[in-house]
Amino acid sequence: MSFKEQMKQKADGIEALLKEYIPRESGFQKTIFEAMNYSILAGGKRLRPLILQETYRLFGGEERAVEPFMAAMEMIHTSSLVHDDLPAMDADEYRRGRRTTWVVYGEDMAILAGDALMIFAFETASKAFALSAHPDRVGQAVGILAQKTGIYGMIGGQTVDVELTDKPVSAEQLDFIYRLKTGALLEASMMIGAVLAGASAEEVRAVERIACDVGVAFQIQDDILDMTGTAEVLGKPIGSDAKNNKTTYVSIYGLDAARTQVERLSERAIETMHGLTARNEFLEELFVSLIHRDR
Amino acid sequence: MSFKEQMKQKADGIEALLKEYIPRESGFQKTIFEAMNYSILAGGKRLRPLILQETYRLFGGEERAVEPFMAAMEMIHTSSLVHDDLPAMDADEYRRGRRTTWVVYGEDMAILAGDALMIFAFETASKAFALSAHPDRVGQAVGILAQKTGIYGMIGGQTVDVELTDKPVSAEQLDFIYRLKTGALLEASMMIGAVLAGASAEEVRAVERIACDVGVAFQIQDDILDMTGTAEVLGKPIGSDAKNNKTTYVSIYGLDAARTQVERLSERAIETMHGLTARNEFLEELFVSLIHRDR
Repeated sequence: MSFKEQMKQKADGIEALLKEYIPRESGFQKTIFEAMNYSILAGGKRLRPLILQETYRLFGGEERAVEPFMAAMEMIHTSSLVHDDLPAMDADEYRRGRRTTWVVYGEDMAILAGDALMIFAFETASKAFALSAHPDRVGQAVGILAQKTGIYGMIGGQTVDVELTDKPVSAEQLDFIYRLKTGALLEASMMIGAVLAGASAEEVRAVERIACDVGVAFQIQDDILDMTGTAEVLGKPIGSDAKNNKTTYVSIYGLDAARTQVERLSERAIETMHGLTARNEFLEELFVSLIHRDR
Repeated sequence: MSFKEQMKQKADGIEALLKEYIPRESGFQKTIFEAMNYSILAGGKRLRPLILQETYRLFGGEERAVEPFMAAMEMIHTSSLVHDDLPAMDADEYRRGRRTTWVVYGEDMAILAGDALMIFAFETASKAFALSAHPDRVGQAVGILAQKTGIYGMIGGQTVDVELTDKPVSAEQLDFIYRLKTGALLEASMMIGAVLAGASAEEVRAVERIACDVGVAFQIQDDILDMTGTAEVLGKPIGSDAKNNKTTYVSIYGLDAARTQVERLSERAIETMHGLTARNEFLEELFVSLIHRDR
């Protein structure tokens, strides 16, 4: 099977799994269930659950305990998008061609839907205790989920990003935002996969470094594409960073240095992967395709 | 020591404990730390951590693992207040005589601070794994925290409350809102205290019923006080429910039936408590004082 076919098959599997774990739309609080499911079933690449699953496989994991964590990861990611789109934040009315949650369900319900997805992620992850013979691993994975989502992870990155909008951003701050806003959930995905499969502390630290490199390289590639891509290929307007006067890796270091940095980070990530005792070639191919994409 | 003196001493202990668990205000994301701590150190009765701690003692718990859960419970409660006060929700500018979080830090930071407190509650609770010899109990407690906070608990109740604002509310819906919006976090507090102390499944179900009765009685007493109290004693305007055309227990059943229901629920709660093998007289006195308060 080609890489593309494998991607499609795996994504379909994750889509089916998500549908198993989202709430049934009945009861007095039906509207919040609908708003949550509208947000989470809006499509997307499902990268985080995919990376979690593949890291779990890499370390030989075979329990169903991985499934609730895959769903939880996508719920957390979705909750951040729902709140990011709010009028008081980015005020976005469309995402992936669909109206955003607050446009469809109102601002109050969108705030609650984001909250609900965030909490439901932990409720879902907790279901892994009943699916695993290793409560200590599940406990550690819940801790990682919270750490990488919270103020020292994704939300910490969002906060700094929001606070520095229309303000000068230093190279150090930009690196902080990239590592936390994009990197942290990828780190969580790989670390949770590793922990659940019983990887050693050293291996968990290794996948954390890999995910961080991949996340930052992905983000820099985003900056490059905004400068060099065509609107046709990207499917969204280009040059928006420059127009919005946004500090990016390209605006600080220039296009050549940005390209070199993407190379450097992706090579280091693959090298670290090769240092692990086991291999997962699909995961390596996935990382390369993410980093060297043209859209 | 009098009940009042005990209350003061215990509340001081919880205040000190909260200060241990909240984030240090340094780093690029300093603003979010400040907004979180501004919200959580705004005072309040700290009822939920207090009830959690006393239930833990009732069942003979002696580990420090209870502490992160006490802090987590107050973080969750605070996060819900921060989001409730937002312009898109209740648009409240003051709470307990202080300006609300969104007024001080802006709407975007208040959304993120509520999110951050919610996630940090789980990050904090996860610390209990390192403080307990019983990872299975801690895992179960994390699950209860998520269930009672989420769409089948507090957030479920908030959703229905928000959705039915200025609309007719049935007796069944009102009961649902009271049980979930107020009751669920009290249930979580007692259940987590019981689970961490190693109580039996039957005992955990018993404290869930007690907390539900106390929560609903507390809420009905609120409705009664809004009709019969004086603004001087309450420290807030009275008659606001009637003025806002709000459906309450009193507006549906009348004042006498409301008073009878408070009696019935509080008697049943105390009776269930007496059916447990151990006693905690402070906790009983606390419940009576909460239910039969005049402010």
